Amino acid sequence: MSNNRYRFEALYGHIRAAFKKMGCNEEHASICANVLMSAELRGIPSHGIVRLKDYMLMWQEGRIKTRPDLRIVHETSTTGVIDAGQSFGAVAGTWAMRHAMRKASKFGSAWVSVRNSSHFGIAGYYSMMALKKDMIGITMTNANPLVSPTFSVDRFLGTNPIAVAIPAGEEEPFIADFATTPIARGKLAIKEREGKEVPEGYVQTPEGKPSTDPSIITRGGAILPLGSSYEHGSHKGYSLSAVVDIFSSVLSGANFGPFVPPQVPYLSLKENMPGKGLGHFFGVMRIDGFQPAEEFKAYMDQWIQTFKNAKPDNEHEEVLIPGEPERRNEEIYRREGIPVSDQIIEDLKEVYSALGLRFSL
Amino acid sequence: MSNNRYRFEALYGHIRAAFKKMGCNEEHASICANVLMSAELRGIPSHGIVRLKDYMLMWQEGRIKTRPDLRIVHETSTTGVIDAGQSFGAVAGTWAMRHAMRKASKFGSAWVSVRNSSHFGIAGYYSMMALKKDMIGITMTNANPLVSPTFSVDRFLGTNPIAVAIPAGEEEPFIADFATTPIARGKLAIKEREGKEVPEGYVQTPEGKPSTDPSIITRGGAILPLGSSYEHGSHKGYSLSAVVDIFSSVLSGANFGPFVPPQVPYLSLKENMPGKGLGHFFGVMRIDGFQPAEEFKAYMDQWIQTFKNAKPDNEHEEVLIPGEPERRNEEIYRREGIPVSDQIIEDLKEVYSALGLRFSL
Repeated sequence: MSNNRYRFEALYGHIRAAFKKMGCNEEHASICANVLMSAELRGIPSHGIVRLKDYMLMWQEGRIKTRPDLRIVHETSTTGVIDAGQSFGAVAGTWAMRHAMRKASKFGSAWVSVRNSSHFGIAGYYSMMALKKDMIGITMTNANPLVSPTFSVDRFLGTNPIAVAIPAGEEEPFIADFATTPIARGKLAIKEREGKEVPEGYVQTPEGKPSTDPSIITRGGAILPLGSSYEHGSHKGYSLSAVVDIFSSVLSGANFGPFVPPQVPYLSLKENMPGKGLGHFFGVMRIDGFQPAEEFKAYMDQWIQTFKNAKPDNEHEEVLIPGEPERRNEEIYRREGIPVSDQIIEDLKEVYSALGLRFSL
Repeated sequence: MSNNRYRFEALYGHIRAAFKKMGCNEEHASICANVLMSAELRGIPSHGIVRLKDYMLMWQEGRIKTRPDLRIVHETSTTGVIDAGQSFGAVAGTWAMRHAMRKASKFGSAWVSVRNSSHFGIAGYYSMMALKKDMIGITMTNANPLVSPTFSVDRFLGTNPIAVAIPAGEEEPFIADFATTPIARGKLAIKEREGKEVPEGYVQTPEGKPSTDPSIITRGGAILPLGSSYEHGSHKGYSLSAVVDIFSSVLSGANFGPFVPPQVPYLSLKENMPGKGLGHFFGVMRIDGFQPAEEFKAYMDQWIQTFKNAKPDNEHEEVLIPGEPERRNEEIYRREGIPVSDQIIEDLKEVYSALGLRFSL
């Protein structure tokens, strides 16, 4: 499968037009396109344009609404719950993060849990929103259950990512954005399509035995939590994933763990779901709530420079700061275009045809 | 080495008397004894009475002060930095958590970063303080550098734990408390004393090669981040540990990463440390900041019951909720006494003799 390169602006325009045609208003269409394109730029195509077709099919089935009734259902000065009204996750996430940032600009910090939402793309996008206001951004989401708690064979948790963005001064910001599993679902799917084995520690069989077959998760197997085995601390990965799930769902009234609705149209919803839609969690803290902003930034620069200068082992040239590989990707892709597979371009054409739009990429 | 069992009250009284004799006031002595005894009860003796002798030696050297000048150096409605004035970490942590809880009771949530502190025992202790006020408690601390960033041979991070305590209704609370490494420092030391090998994925040689020798970290080797290898997501463990370090130090002005002062008297302080002492980070969120408290608790009970009922694999009888093993320990130890090794009783006698106290356990 070949990968042609496309200009950011051209892809962005096409994606945005599709969201508009589905019924999103100007602002929401821009938000949705921004979130998917941010994943492409950062080199995480599993959360990029590839999602558009599924999003459209979910919208066609009425599982996502393009004119959502987003509202605050409970709040204090610095906490709150938002019901996203079955919106695109990107709309819910952007709205919630903005709300948290408004609260934090008054009170120093704020935390918002969201229910009745859907797949929101890369978690890092929302955390990074906080940077331009000199705030630390924190984002979590629960997801379609594919991960087993330590010692279990049940798929009770999603790959539940955490993203933390921290402003710096001269240096680029620190941006950690990671699934609480050894491998992300998207990367596992690629190995499966290529017919490749994976190392032990990624997946287990339906009986809970180690497996090296990535396709096992389509036959009742499960992804393991970060740590891979109990011996190597998978109960810590399980704990972390559980916290993400609880902050995203129990706080907001969204569905938790095994009940989180699938974000693909070919998997139907469970019956008797205890909550509403999928859940997210967002938080911000003003850096000047702790130190004068310039002092914090200077000290953060020192942190980053120190860790950049950590001595690499013999097999590597350098030690990376979280967020650095994605930043480098973005620089290259903005300059040289974004590689997109022919299959995804075909999907995009299909979406365009279904929506009655004229494709001209 | 044999383990006799001792009543909680007798041990507590002895530990508390030692702190008092060092100069702690009544309240601080109780706090310090509570924190160490909480680790014993929960079955984490590496953070219990064993620390007392080192604490005393650090106090004798003037590296810890028993009449500290604890003060707030910067704050907003919901954020703040506390300078702990070289206090025992237990005093700093309890003071900071109480401060955060007072702020949150007004504004919904609060976050406090602490500098100029020292070893504070188990992180879970402080998070659990929030439970009785129907708040979620979050605790982090940085620690003596022993862990290498992914691809590095430098020891730049501590085992940097995270503890999250979440209230429930009928069920026992959810309490996750874990180091961001595959294995805690204390457990590695036990393997070393026993002359045992450890599985690959815990430690590396000074050149960054895999090792199964736990004593390698006394000869320039390092502990690996949670995930163990890059292939299994150790960059995620590194990211998580980095966040703990930054929240504990860059926010507060404590020393970060490689500069965190050692918490044992036989390791001297580094020169030109950029910050003050060791750092912690504490946060609380009122559950009724998100849902009516009773609704939250009922939904949290449902979460816990669902996960308790996850199907175990063939080798295990049950799936555990974070905090459950420690809770069971506490129940047994309160009833049957706490097992303490002869070596630790000898250390305690030594402390008593050095302080001029009469030992009568």
